[in-house]
Amino acid sequence: MSEPAKPVKIALFGPGTVGTQVVRLLTENRGDLEQRVGAPIEIAGIYVRDTSAPRDAVIDPALLTSDAHALIDDADLVVELIGGIEPARSFMLESIGAGAAVVTANKALLAAHGPELFEAADAANVDLYFEAAVAGAIPIIRPVRESLAGDHVKRILGIVNGTTNYVLDQMTTNALDYDVAVKQAQDLGYAEADPTADVEGHDAAAKAAILASLAFHQRVHLDDVYCEGITAITADDVAAAAEAGHVIKLLAIVERTAQGVTAKVHPALVPLEHPLAGVHGAFNAVFVEAEAAGELMFYGQGAGGTPTASAVLGDIVSAARHIAQGGRGPRESHYADLPVLPIEASNSRFQLRMIVHDEPGVLAGIASTLAQRGVSIEAVRQKAASADTGLATIVISTHRAPEADVAKVLDALRASDAVTEIRSVLRIEGE
Amino acid sequence: MSEPAKPVKIALFGPGTVGTQVVRLLTENRGDLEQRVGAPIEIAGIYVRDTSAPRDAVIDPALLTSDAHALIDDADLVVELIGGIEPARSFMLESIGAGAAVVTANKALLAAHGPELFEAADAANVDLYFEAAVAGAIPIIRPVRESLAGDHVKRILGIVNGTTNYVLDQMTTNALDYDVAVKQAQDLGYAEADPTADVEGHDAAAKAAILASLAFHQRVHLDDVYCEGITAITADDVAAAAEAGHVIKLLAIVERTAQGVTAKVHPALVPLEHPLAGVHGAFNAVFVEAEAAGELMFYGQGAGGTPTASAVLGDIVSAARHIAQGGRGPRESHYADLPVLPIEASNSRFQLRMIVHDEPGVLAGIASTLAQRGVSIEAVRQKAASADTGLATIVISTHRAPEADVAKVLDALRASDAVTEIRSVLRIEGE
Repeated sequence: MSEPAKPVKIALFGPGTVGTQVVRLLTENRGDLEQRVGAPIEIAGIYVRDTSAPRDAVIDPALLTSDAHALIDDADLVVELIGGIEPARSFMLESIGAGAAVVTANKALLAAHGPELFEAADAANVDLYFEAAVAGAIPIIRPVRESLAGDHVKRILGIVNGTTNYVLDQMTTNALDYDVAVKQAQDLGYAEADPTADVEGHDAAAKAAILASLAFHQRVHLDDVYCEGITAITADDVAAAAEAGHVIKLLAIVERTAQGVTAKVHPALVPLEHPLAGVHGAFNAVFVEAEAAGELMFYGQGAGGTPTASAVLGDIVSAARHIAQGGRGPRESHYADLPVLPIEASNSRFQLRMIVHDEPGVLAGIASTLAQRGVSIEAVRQKAASADTGLATIVISTHRAPEADVAKVLDALRASDAVTEIRSVLRIEGE
Repeated sequence: MSEPAKPVKIALFGPGTVGTQVVRLLTENRGDLEQRVGAPIEIAGIYVRDTSAPRDAVIDPALLTSDAHALIDDADLVVELIGGIEPARSFMLESIGAGAAVVTANKALLAAHGPELFEAADAANVDLYFEAAVAGAIPIIRPVRESLAGDHVKRILGIVNGTTNYVLDQMTTNALDYDVAVKQAQDLGYAEADPTADVEGHDAAAKAAILASLAFHQRVHLDDVYCEGITAITADDVAAAAEAGHVIKLLAIVERTAQGVTAKVHPALVPLEHPLAGVHGAFNAVFVEAEAAGELMFYGQGAGGTPTASAVLGDIVSAARHIAQGGRGPRESHYADLPVLPIEASNSRFQLRMIVHDEPGVLAGIASTLAQRGVSIEAVRQKAASADTGLATIVISTHRAPEADVAKVLDALRASDAVTEIRSVLRIEGE
């Protein structure tokens, strides 16, 4: 008979919504997990700042400790679910330095300090897993990092923030105003009391930085990501989009071109036939375009304690198996060194919706404004003028054009006497 | 300076459609792949039965050999793309025995001889990867095996055969007859001259066996999979489905219940709102229901030389990295020992469409036939009788009921004088 395997000791930092579910699933599924790991698993302790604060019943009070250093010393595997930059960063570096594998869901930390953490993990030869940091329960990190390791990712379009997808979906399907939809999302617990991080696109931008780094084997920092939220989107925009067979989605877009890499977050018009258009409610989906694999999409729940805990546990099993049986997961290989381009160097199709004086020659003038700046028109729709005001609506869709050229077009249109107002400027993606 | 890493020697068996693309991508992307592997990679040789047969230009004739044993001896990693049972099985066992890792896309072999191969790989402590065996380019094996390793998969519904999805999608969107749609699929290269393996569900059944084994950590053999193809589906069925807000899809369904595990392949009515209903053309998609993660879907190209080669290359990189840097992928752990249940023990919702004599009491009689056998009716639609014939159409949807009870209902209806014909019996899934 072989000797019984040594238990893998797991330390948990931050027993919040996700952490509590991680503890519950670790406890309830222990038998299965130990089979998959090939060794016993044991919760060595749970770090909290205040051991006397009230906790969920699944958290054994005897496991609580506020001595982070002793806990890290004792652990083979540290699960970091505190969130934010500090003290999460220091705890992770200390854990890695002590030879422990780390599993985290901390997108903000990875987007801002990923290279430092990955280098530390490489130097210490320990695993650093983070499946839950992007798109919650959806396996996207492992597929991009491993399944597509023999391919070239060209572009990723992701609905990676459930709050904003819920808000936009409600505006679309129930014709709600932005404020009403946000209030509803707050009432249902999909949005925080202060929804800024979601609606301004900051959460999605952190995920875009992580996806770009991963997909292009390249360092892409949060500061490299162009970020535009959904606060300016009106019921009017949504209705106009629907008329033209589009829905508005907040997309994280990372792309590799011959010139370099771009990473951006902005609302976009997505054609109804595109798989991303069918992603409703608070669901997430990540659409990947790879050279050989073609189009792939990964769909599921992007947040929530239990779904996110599923992703954390998958990582725990992988890391624990390596601890018990040897081996390591793939290193983060940032061997590529393409320039990370600013938004101005990026290309998009655009839809410009504007109010104009309904006079002969106006459309010709606008068309020439675009042509002079090298922006080619794909389609124009003009809406019957109102007799009272003498104003008409013109909607122009452009072919793919550099952002910088379109910015010049917008400046010229704003300066034009014929144009009274530019109602919206939206990029078109997924065509 | 550290010593240059030893090259990983790769042997390829079967340079067909997929194999040729694997060689092309290995050659074109070599620099990137070597960065990801952390060592040089080298094609040690390509096994073919006849070295003099004409080959694609990317295949270097100098690499061709018909000496399988010498090639295996020389290789660190064997890529098996011959397909079929023999000699693929012998070559794989010989490779594993010689200490080489194996990457394969051979679903038939895994469904029939998986346990033997996994045990051999475990005993030899080498990797056995097979991402391309199910759903082509879509990463599904790795997510189920690793990302969901901390979760419990309850059910998987998969569109895993592109040929049949193309045929059914054409019947649905262009109202084609079955024969016409199959002919079109053949003309476009989506279906083989002899389409039996696809249209009878055999290909999907092999994938169901693999998915069930993986998801439930359990041995499920091809012979355990109930299999019903699409050859009986008529334009009439498709039209009736559309009327009721359904599309017909050929699904591979694997499920774990308190009683055991079921694995089946059959056409099913899927509601239009379900994400699987939007999977068009020859695309594949796998819908996973897990206890903690909730609903996930993986979508992409299920076949084709280049997409399938992408999946094979992802496996090659993982296995080569382990060879170069140590470690191993997860072992196939068939620790569960639930009974694999026959179709009779399985539950489904059903839709029964039948022609009846339009006489008073017929519907009551049919309802009582179902009630007596414990099958509960969810909805009934009756279509106006034709005055000429005195016949009417009745469509009954049942609540979830055991297959065995529904079989008894069908026997009784067939024996009934009131029912002149049972037009179709289709299961309803995804509600």
